[in-house]
Amino acid sequence: MKCRRCKAPAVIDIRRHNAAFCRDCFLHHCKEQVKKAIDEFKMFGPDDNILVAVSGGKDSLALWHILSELGYRADGLYIGLGIGDYSDESGVRTRAFAQAHGYTLVEVSLPSDYGYDIPTAASRTNRAPCSSCGLSKRHLFNKAALDGGYDVLATGHNLDDEAAVLLGNVLHWEPGYLGRQYPVLPAADGFAKKVKPLVKMGEREMAAYCVLLDIDYQVEECPMAEGNRHLGYKEVLNSLEQRSPGAKAAFLSSFFSRGHDHFKDAAHVEKGELNSCDECGSPTTGTRCAFCALRNRVISETPVSIGRKD
Amino acid sequence: MKCRRCKAPAVIDIRRHNAAFCRDCFLHHCKEQVKKAIDEFKMFGPDDNILVAVSGGKDSLALWHILSELGYRADGLYIGLGIGDYSDESGVRTRAFAQAHGYTLVEVSLPSDYGYDIPTAASRTNRAPCSSCGLSKRHLFNKAALDGGYDVLATGHNLDDEAAVLLGNVLHWEPGYLGRQYPVLPAADGFAKKVKPLVKMGEREMAAYCVLLDIDYQVEECPMAEGNRHLGYKEVLNSLEQRSPGAKAAFLSSFFSRGHDHFKDAAHVEKGELNSCDECGSPTTGTRCAFCALRNRVISETPVSIGRKD
Repeated sequence: MKCRRCKAPAVIDIRRHNAAFCRDCFLHHCKEQVKKAIDEFKMFGPDDNILVAVSGGKDSLALWHILSELGYRADGLYIGLGIGDYSDESGVRTRAFAQAHGYTLVEVSLPSDYGYDIPTAASRTNRAPCSSCGLSKRHLFNKAALDGGYDVLATGHNLDDEAAVLLGNVLHWEPGYLGRQYPVLPAADGFAKKVKPLVKMGEREMAAYCVLLDIDYQVEECPMAEGNRHLGYKEVLNSLEQRSPGAKAAFLSSFFSRGHDHFKDAAHVEKGELNSCDECGSPTTGTRCAFCALRNRVISETPVSIGRKD
Repeated sequence: MKCRRCKAPAVIDIRRHNAAFCRDCFLHHCKEQVKKAIDEFKMFGPDDNILVAVSGGKDSLALWHILSELGYRADGLYIGLGIGDYSDESGVRTRAFAQAHGYTLVEVSLPSDYGYDIPTAASRTNRAPCSSCGLSKRHLFNKAALDGGYDVLATGHNLDDEAAVLLGNVLHWEPGYLGRQYPVLPAADGFAKKVKPLVKMGEREMAAYCVLLDIDYQVEECPMAEGNRHLGYKEVLNSLEQRSPGAKAAFLSSFFSRGHDHFKDAAHVEKGELNSCDECGSPTTGTRCAFCALRNRVISETPVSIGRKD
């Protein structure tokens, strides 16, 4: 197996591209694919200040590294979620990575700054853990990007993530969700611009990127995500991909080029008239935003014991 | 396990309905579900003349039986495809079924009437066998419905079939295909009205319907369909259904209620200006329809040897 670009011995093959690469050409290929996504979807320019949401996993650390290597001004944002050892180790890895590369890291702690953690939110509400977690992160990502004056918030959602979300959205045909699933969401009143520069990169490629560069990332899946639907959708898509390499990328990219447009209006219609949350000022369709409502519900019942039991 | 309707011992359970039925109540349930689909999608009324496309398989024979039991005027249309023993046995079963019930059967033979069979079409063209077969059947269904003066053509596509087609359409995001996937397609110049009254019925239910009524149907899958994508999509959907019963029906019904509308315009746009085929007069975007083009290509090369080798 030889590198497609330089004919040296290859270290990785990518079936959907029908190509193999040596170490250096693979790293080059990753940067090219990210650059392609940034250009194709007009995500940001060289003068923009980018805030990268980093979890300590392979995708977000690699994204932060690639954007920096491409010459963009990218700071990191780490949110401590209070999910026991998993969060502790993710934080340690993120801080070590930032320090080793001289990158600027912004930190927010859900337990210290907001008085609750995800396991408590999950046990005190009827929501699935991933739902409370997603809601909390989306709110804090947006707030940090706006408060910090960043031009854009970048997340490490990769091709596999986005294809699984798309499959979920399609299985229930929610026009609003389909209308909002796109690699760029423009800024709006109270909402930071959001981008997903890894939409052309598979999960396996991101892991390889980190391994080849000795980036020490959190390998464990979040312990609270076990059995969630999203992982089931990934399995389904992987079985399709195995039958027909490229099926997953075609599913996602043809949605962006031919499907999404048909749902664009639905995204706006469902958002409706927006007010300011009476607690935090965030945009909301009611009087209080979903984040403040969740937080109030979680912290009102009994005082939350923060941190691990040990 | 007791029948949901009469509490007698049940013979079948339907997980997605969270219900079990005895023989008679199951047969009643099937008729009710078909009636519901006919009403919901305004497929036809009591005075319409219906032509049911019958293959000799469980779905089409059961559909013909249910429509007749519901009091509709339904004749059958059988198309001999010349696929060796498979076609011979399908024809025998269809004729026996029609005779036993006193139903009127219209027959068309691809080899005798049009000079080719599906195996020859598959070997003489670059098309997959299912593609030549589908094209030929669609043309002949439409022609028979128009020539016979029927108000509507009904096919036995069930929930599993339609969900698999939808998954295929979604994996490639073809707006035109998505716009044309609906349980009713209205009549248009040169096109008969087409309906799919089994869209609420699973494959397993249709087999049970035939077994409980001693309807002798063709059990074999078509030997030329092996390994086709459609069957792969069915497997994928079955694995989703097993994780979450009802997922398949929700996928299809939510597309009909919330998704399809977003692609309606695309169906019209892609059809464009229509002419008459210079050979058979059927509507076509070019000068010759796809059916005549296929037939000419297949029969032009060498004389076609019709029938089985034995």
